[in-house]
Amino acid sequence: MELLEQRILHDGTHIGTEIVKVDSFLNHQLDIRLFNELGKEIRRRFADVEVNKILTIESSGIGVAAIASIYFDYIPVVFAKKTSPNTMTEEFYGAPVKSFTKGTVSIARVAKQYLSAADKVLIIDDFMAHGEAAAALANLVEQAGGTVCGISAVVEKEFQGGSKKLREKGYRVDSLAVITKIEDGKIFFRRDPE
Amino acid sequence: MELLEQRILHDGTHIGTEIVKVDSFLNHQLDIRLFNELGKEIRRRFADVEVNKILTIESSGIGVAAIASIYFDYIPVVFAKKTSPNTMTEEFYGAPVKSFTKGTVSIARVAKQYLSAADKVLIIDDFMAHGEAAAALANLVEQAGGTVCGISAVVEKEFQGGSKKLREKGYRVDSLAVITKIEDGKIFFRRDPE
Repeated sequence: MELLEQRILHDGTHIGTEIVKVDSFLNHQLDIRLFNELGKEIRRRFADVEVNKILTIESSGIGVAAIASIYFDYIPVVFAKKTSPNTMTEEFYGAPVKSFTKGTVSIARVAKQYLSAADKVLIIDDFMAHGEAAAALANLVEQAGGTVCGISAVVEKEFQGGSKKLREKGYRVDSLAVITKIEDGKIFFRRDPE
Repeated sequence: MELLEQRILHDGTHIGTEIVKVDSFLNHQLDIRLFNELGKEIRRRFADVEVNKILTIESSGIGVAAIASIYFDYIPVVFAKKTSPNTMTEEFYGAPVKSFTKGTVSIARVAKQYLSAADKVLIIDDFMAHGEAAAALANLVEQAGGTVCGISAVVEKEFQGGSKKLREKGYRVDSLAVITKIEDGKIFFRRDPE
């Protein structure tokens, strides 16, 4: 998505060859006008699938997921909570999420009443690197017997292998900006198919 | 706000005389169609003030703040991050937030570049009880030299004294549903002025 790529190039800061910071419009300060375009584009890319719920994970995914819902006729958004491993209970579906940057494991949790076998779920996240969060969210949907219709990250760092792993598991992954490498201080994108 | 009060009565669960759970539409699963009405109503209530930024705190405030921004001509939303007290750095404004339910203190943090003296800030939060989170957010705005235009919670538990304390400090507080007491298994609201 050209608009987003331009914004990443203009306002993102990259550190070394692995980290891109987009705090000024996606992760800490939120540009809702941009989010509106992101939501519209996610809808366009998943126009052929029936979706009745959006699932994301706290915190940075919530804003984009909320705005995207408007374009999916206001379907409910559920956000998984990140909790420490010892707070799992019977009433929640839980799946571990490993953080490569922090070297920690947390549990993504969703209360059982908010996911069911009738759910056709689109997973939306702000960032995809190793795909750990998206895989955990997909796991939660499947524990409930629901269907994962697709996974969309706003920014995907393809070189960290998350989307490849998720596609090998059979998921449809379609992210809005796909970074293929960061080299000599420059960010490279996989060009949009259109 | 009648629509919201009816929803709380219909879908909220209350435990004892202090706790109201609205996980099914506000805190865990998000009803974006309702959020759209909430955003519109927040705009209506603050129609007379100039606002150029919305400030909230992760995680549950983000969805409502994002949708509300649409009705304030897409002004930026900033969400404060809740971190442990030892992660404060020079580059962030930080203010302590005491959690009465958990008995813990966390730090609400906003990176310095996202709040400034030019900011006219509307604070939006999902729940107000003792007003600790809102007071911390107001503190962050003022550390930056900015102006707090108002504070709006979606659900306020007036009997826990948060709004009274904030008004005594000079803040304009206008919440969408104001619970005055929970007694004999019934939730009582302060009726809207209109």
